[in-house]
Amino acid sequence: MPSHSQSPSPTGSGQRRPASQQGMRRQNLAVVLGAVAAHAPLSRADVAARTGLTRAAVSTLVVTLHEAGLVSELGPAPSGRVGRPGNALVLSSEGPAGLGLEVGVEHLAACVVDLSGEVRVQRRVASANRGRPADEVLADLGGLAAELLAEAEALKLRPVGAVLAVPGLVDAAAGTVVHAANLGWRELRLPPELLGLPLSVENEANLGALAELWRTAGEAEGPAPVDFVHVSAEAGIGAALVVGGRLFRGARGFAGELGHVPVHPDGPLCPCGAHGCLEQYAGERAVLASAGLPEAAGDWVALLAKRAAEGSAPVRRALEQAGAALGTALAGAVNLVDPEAVVLGGAYAELGEWLLPAMRAELAARVTVRPWEPGALSASGLGRAGALLGAALVTVRRIIEDPSGAYGVG
Amino acid sequence: MPSHSQSPSPTGSGQRRPASQQGMRRQNLAVVLGAVAAHAPLSRADVAARTGLTRAAVSTLVVTLHEAGLVSELGPAPSGRVGRPGNALVLSSEGPAGLGLEVGVEHLAACVVDLSGEVRVQRRVASANRGRPADEVLADLGGLAAELLAEAEALKLRPVGAVLAVPGLVDAAAGTVVHAANLGWRELRLPPELLGLPLSVENEANLGALAELWRTAGEAEGPAPVDFVHVSAEAGIGAALVVGGRLFRGARGFAGELGHVPVHPDGPLCPCGAHGCLEQYAGERAVLASAGLPEAAGDWVALLAKRAAEGSAPVRRALEQAGAALGTALAGAVNLVDPEAVVLGGAYAELGEWLLPAMRAELAARVTVRPWEPGALSASGLGRAGALLGAALVTVRRIIEDPSGAYGVG
Repeated sequence: MPSHSQSPSPTGSGQRRPASQQGMRRQNLAVVLGAVAAHAPLSRADVAARTGLTRAAVSTLVVTLHEAGLVSELGPAPSGRVGRPGNALVLSSEGPAGLGLEVGVEHLAACVVDLSGEVRVQRRVASANRGRPADEVLADLGGLAAELLAEAEALKLRPVGAVLAVPGLVDAAAGTVVHAANLGWRELRLPPELLGLPLSVENEANLGALAELWRTAGEAEGPAPVDFVHVSAEAGIGAALVVGGRLFRGARGFAGELGHVPVHPDGPLCPCGAHGCLEQYAGERAVLASAGLPEAAGDWVALLAKRAAEGSAPVRRALEQAGAALGTALAGAVNLVDPEAVVLGGAYAELGEWLLPAMRAELAARVTVRPWEPGALSASGLGRAGALLGAALVTVRRIIEDPSGAYGVG
Repeated sequence: MPSHSQSPSPTGSGQRRPASQQGMRRQNLAVVLGAVAAHAPLSRADVAARTGLTRAAVSTLVVTLHEAGLVSELGPAPSGRVGRPGNALVLSSEGPAGLGLEVGVEHLAACVVDLSGEVRVQRRVASANRGRPADEVLADLGGLAAELLAEAEALKLRPVGAVLAVPGLVDAAAGTVVHAANLGWRELRLPPELLGLPLSVENEANLGALAELWRTAGEAEGPAPVDFVHVSAEAGIGAALVVGGRLFRGARGFAGELGHVPVHPDGPLCPCGAHGCLEQYAGERAVLASAGLPEAAGDWVALLAKRAAEGSAPVRRALEQAGAALGTALAGAVNLVDPEAVVLGGAYAELGEWLLPAMRAELAARVTVRPWEPGALSASGLGRAGALLGAALVTVRRIIEDPSGAYGVG
């Protein structure tokens, strides 16, 4: 089972490793690349000023990053300083990149992002995956990925890792889908590679949250929060917790099961075996039934949004009830983990207009011990594109955070 | 407001600091002291083997730690190795120490622990603090602390920091009690020093959880979990989340408000303004009312335990109902944060015999998506001693984790 934690001894920190010269170089490569990623374009002198490293050290480190194809030079940068302006360093728009993959109940998707997080190639195809043999699904996904890699190559991009988004419980460390009820996958071990790229698997709600965390300033209205609860729904209701800019996985990697938080403990029986889980009030089936609509095989979120926009009273009432249940469950979550924000993401972001008011009312009524701003709850601008984008960005972030690490490109 | 997180830039880690020689020495002092803390007695050669540092480096670092009074030598250690056995290093039982302080609704308490976490001096006095002016309470506490410091001096112990446990919402970074309803304290800024020692303030539930985390192997039946939810009750119901061996504070430092997680959203009105909060089912007043007992000014937990042990049916039924409500709220918490364990601590640990069965039943029924072992819920062996012990241990842990840091003793 995955775990972010090691067992420290009861009275000491004996597991900590001593610092070394190699460790210093590795850390300083990350410091320089991180500065370029955050503030490009930057001259070498700017990098030195921002990081506290000497110019000589920066120059040496930049040679390594340049040879690895991670940074490139724009030409002389404007400089307010006296003396020769340095060439401006930016993240390379060619070379190492990330491949994102997604298996949904009704679709397959893939995209390639470059080091700066820009989506350069993207494809989504309809595919009825519910109950289909996993090897067939993965073969189709491999075909889609091969097309994208060819397109990426034409752009001189070279994905060095692939991450697959799955709607279900995932053991990321073991590379296993523990249970994806809507696909019919259980204890499915994924191959360690796809088309020669190391392949990881991750829960789609987690990846949507990471995309929200990493969305570039240009896409966001303000600085992205680093401590938030991200709620999304596709086939089920999932949440992801981001803490201090990192995904919070829990002891076994299963954190974020908001869909099975009790809302009314004596409420209807949930397929999970418990009574009154959030999914019984805000899940796909519950909302469709409450709205008087038949269970839809297609895009039920789009259907609900359309009917609500047309003014359907039963649909609006069903969404309001779902919003209230979401708000009640989230109030408990906010009382417990004290995030700075709550983000409604995934497909449900498209229903924000009808869900958010009731969610806000419940949060305002139930998070009372310390202040809670209504604006701290918002709908994601990424919506259902978030999970795939997050999958592609994982590889890019790993490179930037430790260029000598995972993929050894530095 | 306190925050463990800094704002990383959207696409990089530019804030990371470069590694330096000074940083290496500081880190390696912590590595050596941590090894001694975890595995003492250890020879210098043992430390080198455990840490990967050279023997020469270890010897130099040990000189510094010895001069700071942090380690001492026992004399020759038994050694299976060929050659001269080295002197065994242990944490010093004299010198730097931690002072813990506690203000309860009905008592004041203080204790001093040495570097190995052993309580060397301890005192608890009755004191009716509800609604009493804070400066009077703190003056009495200062008097108690002065007595303990004199006793500690006789043992050649020198506390270098004091931490105060308070039943209420605390802004630890600002040194402020935001709201302690049962004491009548609101926005109370504590002095930065007490008797010349730097003074910190912390929520008692958090400190109880830290004591549980840091309890020494001798006191525990097995290795202490590093990812757990710690529920305690004194005047109100509080929880603390420990993640990866660290206290999880939330974005603003207010995580763990389990007492106001909704259990029955349409339930009775809580003084907080919301309906159906956990405190309305498992808080002091709710349990006493449900048991048909008058609100007690004294030790109501001891009273309930006594009556339950005597076989009182209304008391047992009231505790069973409280346990069910605790279990429902905790099931939501477990689904959300996926801890490896849940610990019932504080005064409620003494009611474990009557609370735990219903708590276990609710957890078993509601944490169903992935396995939950009934044994993962237990009552703390520290009980209501936990908060004070945790307060004293904070200082000791800070020294061991970074001897050159906070108190500069290394």
